[in-house]
Amino acid sequence: MRHVLVIGIGMGEAEGLTGHALSALGRADVFFLLDKSEGAGELVRAREELIARFGKPGHRVVRAPSPKRAPASLDSARNTYEGAVADWHGARAALLAGLIAGELGEDQTGAMLVWGDPMLYDSTLRVLAKARAQADFAVEVFPGITALQALCAAHALPLNAIGEEVLLTTGRHVAAATPDAPAFAVLLDDGTGLAALAARGFQGQIWWGANLGTAGQVLHAGTFSEVAGAILETRAQVKAARGWVMDVWLARRDG
Amino acid sequence: MRHVLVIGIGMGEAEGLTGHALSALGRADVFFLLDKSEGAGELVRAREELIARFGKPGHRVVRAPSPKRAPASLDSARNTYEGAVADWHGARAALLAGLIAGELGEDQTGAMLVWGDPMLYDSTLRVLAKARAQADFAVEVFPGITALQALCAAHALPLNAIGEEVLLTTGRHVAAATPDAPAFAVLLDDGTGLAALAARGFQGQIWWGANLGTAGQVLHAGTFSEVAGAILETRAQVKAARGWVMDVWLARRDG
Repeated sequence: MRHVLVIGIGMGEAEGLTGHALSALGRADVFFLLDKSEGAGELVRAREELIARFGKPGHRVVRAPSPKRAPASLDSARNTYEGAVADWHGARAALLAGLIAGELGEDQTGAMLVWGDPMLYDSTLRVLAKARAQADFAVEVFPGITALQALCAAHALPLNAIGEEVLLTTGRHVAAATPDAPAFAVLLDDGTGLAALAARGFQGQIWWGANLGTAGQVLHAGTFSEVAGAILETRAQVKAARGWVMDVWLARRDG
Repeated sequence: MRHVLVIGIGMGEAEGLTGHALSALGRADVFFLLDKSEGAGELVRAREELIARFGKPGHRVVRAPSPKRAPASLDSARNTYEGAVADWHGARAALLAGLIAGELGEDQTGAMLVWGDPMLYDSTLRVLAKARAQADFAVEVFPGITALQALCAAHALPLNAIGEEVLLTTGRHVAAATPDAPAFAVLLDDGTGLAALAARGFQGQIWWGANLGTAGQVLHAGTFSEVAGAILETRAQVKAARGWVMDVWLARRDG
């Protein structure tokens, strides 16, 4: 039977991977790289270095341009965004099913590398589940360290207060409304979630980090109203200087 | 300056640690083991094996019985539980501050090993922050794979639906009230959270796992109303057979 390994590569640095993930890199006959057009060269290189260093002799790399997602207009409803994403996943699933059937021999193993952990705000597992309706293969998953864990490690920060609930959410949700949860971690924020929270006068603490676990890691923490402006400035500077910025933040309400 | 390394050891198996975590094990002059009395022998052994295998020559292991937590009575209010935990943390902080000042030379490095990741429902970072008020040392944190990530990997499961929020919560919260979030991951549940949700007729899906990443891993998934009973039975059987059970589950509402 064909196997597809989905390997969490954390921040892309070899020392940040688990031994299981490194071993998995050495099992693959074929690596599938579906590059999003926005992929920054620096990130693509980190992934290629892992494959070159830990891939077994004779492995192949198959590249395919990822299908483009239909642009979501600024006034799109949440359902429209999700509909556009679902369409995009369908196109990716068809592409992957074709690649798996066409590029893998019947007992061969393919691999896909995913930043952070495949479980957290990543579409690979969802797309592969759809692809299994069109091609016969088994999926094995290898966890990796998420940016959220890197954030907490960098700040020596427990995610939750004692016995407290924590909401994992996105910039899109925070831009629409301030979460009710006592603490919330925000991923996939392009800055609009943070700016919206600031505009609403949120009272609490924030711990923020960008490009975590890389040489350009930047951190901020403090009272939200005092540091939110500086965070947005830093975010813009990092993006301008480096060409990309990946950030994550945790907010905790006062009281 | 004294350093204390807080090292996430995931499920305790060497291959599940990151390279950074393994390197950190090799930096420590002294390992501090504060055993809870309920610690199962099997788990203690896994930790000791990591230290023996990756600790540097000449490292020392300092053991101290962890202070007991005042028992929370069944009818205790949430604040009482939190108050009892805070008192317990204070006692542990005083103990640790004394150990760090007494057992570490001025430029030496201590280490504490934490199951999963120190950021997630673990008190070590909070206790060390309190201890820093009484002793002068720096803290460095090394993330590990959490049981929640092991659960998602075992089920090849994305934690969140497309763009969806996910609440991280505890058995105690779920026993008190069903979360509003479209999906919620439940940690620290002794079965009462799951049983309460079943008693309320929760409509949705569940993915459950116990002793994840160990030889005795057990999984269940399906429609909540159809599998909740089997999960509670399995949980009791595993605990009876092995002497301990650590489980985590994700629930997603229908619709």
